[in-house]
Amino acid sequence: MVRTAYVIVSPSDLFEFSKVALTRAGVPEEDATIVADALVAANLRGIDSHGVVRLHSYIERILRGLINPSAKPQIVRDFSAIALVDGNSGLGYVAAVYASDLAVEKAGKYGIGVVGVRNSSHFGMAAYYGMRIAKNKMIGIVMSNAPPAIAPWGGKVARLGTNPISIAFPYGDKPIVLDMALSVVARGKIRLAALKREKIPEGWAFDEEGRPTTDPQAALRGTLAPIGGPKGYGLAIAVDILSGVLTGSAYSIHVKALDDYSGPSGTGFFVEAIDVQAFRPFEEYLEDLENFIKIIKETPKASGVSEIYLPGEIEEKISKQRLRDGIPLDRDTVELLKKTALMLQLELPKFLV
Amino acid sequence: MVRTAYVIVSPSDLFEFSKVALTRAGVPEEDATIVADALVAANLRGIDSHGVVRLHSYIERILRGLINPSAKPQIVRDFSAIALVDGNSGLGYVAAVYASDLAVEKAGKYGIGVVGVRNSSHFGMAAYYGMRIAKNKMIGIVMSNAPPAIAPWGGKVARLGTNPISIAFPYGDKPIVLDMALSVVARGKIRLAALKREKIPEGWAFDEEGRPTTDPQAALRGTLAPIGGPKGYGLAIAVDILSGVLTGSAYSIHVKALDDYSGPSGTGFFVEAIDVQAFRPFEEYLEDLENFIKIIKETPKASGVSEIYLPGEIEEKISKQRLRDGIPLDRDTVELLKKTALMLQLELPKFLV
Repeated sequence: MVRTAYVIVSPSDLFEFSKVALTRAGVPEEDATIVADALVAANLRGIDSHGVVRLHSYIERILRGLINPSAKPQIVRDFSAIALVDGNSGLGYVAAVYASDLAVEKAGKYGIGVVGVRNSSHFGMAAYYGMRIAKNKMIGIVMSNAPPAIAPWGGKVARLGTNPISIAFPYGDKPIVLDMALSVVARGKIRLAALKREKIPEGWAFDEEGRPTTDPQAALRGTLAPIGGPKGYGLAIAVDILSGVLTGSAYSIHVKALDDYSGPSGTGFFVEAIDVQAFRPFEEYLEDLENFIKIIKETPKASGVSEIYLPGEIEEKISKQRLRDGIPLDRDTVELLKKTALMLQLELPKFLV
Repeated sequence: MVRTAYVIVSPSDLFEFSKVALTRAGVPEEDATIVADALVAANLRGIDSHGVVRLHSYIERILRGLINPSAKPQIVRDFSAIALVDGNSGLGYVAAVYASDLAVEKAGKYGIGVVGVRNSSHFGMAAYYGMRIAKNKMIGIVMSNAPPAIAPWGGKVARLGTNPISIAFPYGDKPIVLDMALSVVARGKIRLAALKREKIPEGWAFDEEGRPTTDPQAALRGTLAPIGGPKGYGLAIAVDILSGVLTGSAYSIHVKALDDYSGPSGTGFFVEAIDVQAFRPFEEYLEDLENFIKIIKETPKASGVSEIYLPGEIEEKISKQRLRDGIPLDRDTVELLKKTALMLQLELPKFLV
């Protein structure tokens, strides 16, 4: 998808449309509000790949009976600082928010809380949950497994997801938020290169024989390279065991992609909240964090670099700007939103006409 | 250092020598046993960079008063599932073992336990502690900050350590053990290339202007590249905040290298134990893990690859072989051990004569 801005939409219009569409598909209003807010939050942060462009596929899965729109997350095990939640094949957003709030509650009592989630589905931008936890003066660590895209190191077939990790640190009203997948780049970047008939840099991907490739077409038939080679492979294993095996959810090839209609995706999450105040007075932590950030931001810069950014800082900047100026949507996203409205027999909102 | 085997030593001889040397330097026998065991464990696993080659620098720091050989780790804060431990500028090994055992104890009570450690020093191979936790049917997650070697993304001066992470999963008597630093390669590999007058591959390092370089000499004056570019940079930030800022220990440029004699290193750790049985019966976890491992191990292989290895599997193989055949030491390590014996006026053991 070539991402040229096609239309500028206000965040509230996008939120309203998403919420109405989800409600029409059978999602209770409270839950539709969560999903719509998370989708628009991703668009605001410039993570358009995890924004409203996804709405269509979720609703498609609901209509096919692969996501239960009214499923409620259910605690199946509760032991002191940990809990295991069954997502009951509902929307990943709803289960992940539930798990985040439960982890925060537990961290308040025990200093730390970990909630595993089984039988859920795609939860969108991991940072959404990390940031939700960080609002409570807690550190949020959030992981999810995902359908296969990465081959085990030395293999030539995908067996591991890009398995996102978000780690968010409370810092005033602008938390430091790492949010990363374990592939060097997202598949979307390779698709874009293929569309533009450009080569891709070395180190991005392997062809279907497991050889490094710079040909985007060969890469699309092959697998994504994990960050740091065997290191990223090892991290992908770890996230899959924590999210899938430990929780009793699907793992590896059993996690289904959004466009795989053979069954519910079975995605698992691992959500952790750490109460800073269990370790130190919050003000002491803040003071050290401020000094740490100062050292990082004031690092002498390489030529051509205008600023050193903290994890999530660029996204925070984009968010501020888009809150003010609106969210640019590309043509493909607009078409998908129209298709979604049509599918649900919704009147087209003004911004789509 | 060109690593050609110079002498083959039995693990028990190496252990004995290390223990005697540490005891002579003032380390209580119980603690000397821990350090000697961890050093030899690293050599056994083929992680020679973290084995007995380090003994000399620890003893040097003890003799200079920068490591307190008889310091006892001390709980400074204890709140339910978390604790904060002060290493009192003692040996990192001793504090990390203490923290691991405390995390295990807490996880037994609360399902999870997290112990932060402040004011400690280099703890060697992170996997040693992850594996120690995994022996208790628990998942071990262990991190440490480290002296600056990596520049913030866009910067040209080191501000972050290679900050190791180990994640160990219990699996029979052979845990799955990820143990990785956040740089693409260790500085030792670049030193080796410099010695051999070879170029280094693209992506390993930056020169002192922050430009990618393939010249090992320029790389040694510059910084190590983090895995996945901004992703590894973000992970290094996260590990430093968890190990240094959250615990009230040193962070960033304040963490001192082993050969920096201006003060104690101030290293911080973050140690977490997760009790599998708090989530599921251990047998159910094992069954899923076995199926997961089967999928990974049976991945179709790229040409020239003889086996797909799990994290830590190669090290486990080497360990078995070295337990049987002995540990090969290179000439530099032998010289350092001799120097250590001389420094402590110890009689040279047979294997060093």
